[in-house]
Amino acid sequence: MKFFELNFKDGDARAGTLYTSHGAIDTPVFMPVATQGSVKAIGVDDLNRIGSQIVLANTYHLYLRPGHEVIEKISGLHKFMGWNKAILTDSGGFQGFSLAHLRTVTKDGFIFKSHIDGSIFRFNYEDVIKFQTLLGSDIIMPLDICSSSNQNKSQVEESMILTNEWISKARKLNINSDQFMFGIVQGGMYEDLRKSCVEQMIDLSFPGYAIGGLSVGEDIDVMYRIVDYTANILPLNSPRYLMGVGSPENLIECISKGIDMFDCVLPTRIARNGSLFLDSGRINITNATFKFDDNPIDLSCNCFTCAHYSKAYIHHLFKAKEFLAYRLASIHNLYFIVNLLREIRKTILMGEFNNFKKEFLSRYNSADRLTQVTQKKMWIESQERKGRDKF
Amino acid sequence: MKFFELNFKDGDARAGTLYTSHGAIDTPVFMPVATQGSVKAIGVDDLNRIGSQIVLANTYHLYLRPGHEVIEKISGLHKFMGWNKAILTDSGGFQGFSLAHLRTVTKDGFIFKSHIDGSIFRFNYEDVIKFQTLLGSDIIMPLDICSSSNQNKSQVEESMILTNEWISKARKLNINSDQFMFGIVQGGMYEDLRKSCVEQMIDLSFPGYAIGGLSVGEDIDVMYRIVDYTANILPLNSPRYLMGVGSPENLIECISKGIDMFDCVLPTRIARNGSLFLDSGRINITNATFKFDDNPIDLSCNCFTCAHYSKAYIHHLFKAKEFLAYRLASIHNLYFIVNLLREIRKTILMGEFNNFKKEFLSRYNSADRLTQVTQKKMWIESQERKGRDKF
Repeated sequence: MKFFELNFKDGDARAGTLYTSHGAIDTPVFMPVATQGSVKAIGVDDLNRIGSQIVLANTYHLYLRPGHEVIEKISGLHKFMGWNKAILTDSGGFQGFSLAHLRTVTKDGFIFKSHIDGSIFRFNYEDVIKFQTLLGSDIIMPLDICSSSNQNKSQVEESMILTNEWISKARKLNINSDQFMFGIVQGGMYEDLRKSCVEQMIDLSFPGYAIGGLSVGEDIDVMYRIVDYTANILPLNSPRYLMGVGSPENLIECISKGIDMFDCVLPTRIARNGSLFLDSGRINITNATFKFDDNPIDLSCNCFTCAHYSKAYIHHLFKAKEFLAYRLASIHNLYFIVNLLREIRKTILMGEFNNFKKEFLSRYNSADRLTQVTQKKMWIESQERKGRDKF
Repeated sequence: MKFFELNFKDGDARAGTLYTSHGAIDTPVFMPVATQGSVKAIGVDDLNRIGSQIVLANTYHLYLRPGHEVIEKISGLHKFMGWNKAILTDSGGFQGFSLAHLRTVTKDGFIFKSHIDGSIFRFNYEDVIKFQTLLGSDIIMPLDICSSSNQNKSQVEESMILTNEWISKARKLNINSDQFMFGIVQGGMYEDLRKSCVEQMIDLSFPGYAIGGLSVGEDIDVMYRIVDYTANILPLNSPRYLMGVGSPENLIECISKGIDMFDCVLPTRIARNGSLFLDSGRINITNATFKFDDNPIDLSCNCFTCAHYSKAYIHHLFKAKEFLAYRLASIHNLYFIVNLLREIRKTILMGEFNNFKKEFLSRYNSADRLTQVTQKKMWIESQERKGRDKF
């Protein structure tokens, strides 16, 4: 079964197609995050209207709840979620990082204390793959250790070596014939470690490769440097997935470095705080400026929210704490990102990506770096708090 | 402009049509409640799919937030909500009841302490009508005093007399040419007061009549007795609206007594607690029984939720506290009620309502009366708590 086709290169930026048994996917592609089997605050009708081709769900969370017996009974995650397009599941490696206080590392994986009820369970490289075959994910990720940005080189290397052992053992396990397993490149902020990791992953010959361990608190220039370096030494004809990245400016920058796939909670997380994407940058709809504004969030936007509702109404919904606020804001932000990547793909196919990138970045007023890093840290800390006070 | 047409009577049950500038409405009709301009947890796309012909919004709440300046700027509530079908707005009389600790009664209305910020504001019979002309509601309600079920007759009578004064003054005020103002019949649990009130309302010649002051904690048999008595002495060719009633068994019973219009938060409120309507009665989806159930809530239901999702998934969403849970449950319960009234209308037009009623009630296992009354009291108390601790 053919999995990836590179349609066109424009500089290092790539337009490709992923073939899954739940549909073909145009790349570059952004995957909305459905951690617990639901993209927060929106339904599959919304996802279809947005034009999402694939979503990401989380193995660790679904393993704990609803658990494998339920997934087995329902015959997989697609049916459970009512979603008939593609699904990628990450492995729980990120929870090994964000819930570090609730786990210990063993030879073959993690021992976690559940963030829900404090119960102890093993989560080995093998459990992770087995559960993903039950889930029926189109793309499955092996278990890995994600180093934090303040670990020293020998710690990062040690984790990388163990990760590579898990992944090489995972590679040999049976998965369903229509599933594809990706390799994961770790190695922190060290080029030589990244290089050694890429070589080992290529030896294992995966249909696609993820770059992990970035966007974990490091400076943005460091992230760009590592993305650039790593993407350049990955095989040309396999898709490259940068884990956990999702702001407009980061997406464009990393596409220009040769990345094909992305996921991030950012668009939906900031939406629930009222922060909305525009071509000119972010606005916060709870700001008093918008109380009387009878225009849609973006006059040129074709999303469901902008077609039906004014800024004044969404401002009101946030003030009145109506659930609908979170749905409408999430729809807009996801549409913005999905549509941005659709536009980017077009410009790549026309060989005009660099102009588009320049124009976009010149009008898009990024959240400043300090804000970005602070917000990301706050989010990681909020993840870390899970279960901290309980157990 | 013709407003109401009585299409057919089957015993005392009635099928009719209301004509508004936002569409014709088949009766009997249930109006989902959009207190703050949003039916909690669902969007206008959901309402359209459900088949709602009209929703109810609340004058008191919208007066406080977003306030009349915003409504004026946006040119009315329909545009603000993105809803192009009919809207009825209630007057704030119910808040005069549920927020009794935050208001005093004056000659011409209430003085409220806002439950949001504690600010003091007058809410007179005239303000209420004026604001509803700004809102552009298709059906507007004058200000009234809703007595509680434990007041004695002279207290109830006193409130009724004052209400009638407000309403007769409100009747003379200008409203938009495509708006219809209803009279409201108060008088508590006393037939003679109800009779006197009906006579005064008929003297004022309204296009429709509401029955207020019921479902406020009294025994269900008392409510049925007063509905029966009052509906019987109201004009045949005007619509009758029973305020605040909405359980399936109450709806059927009151339709059989000649009621045409209903509103209630019940279907959406209990949905957010996981309680879902079936032809056989209510189930609670958070019950462990449903953890592995891969059927929709109701195999024969045509709602969006039942078309896309299993009970196991909705159970999971509630356990995982995902926002989508509240949306999916609310859609199902509203569809159940709206569809029930659509079916009832058909049986009335065929002269078969009584058989339908018997069959429905024989298979529908009502929440027992104690549960009903307890739940209603809890809800009223939760309303009363608004602002209580703050100011």
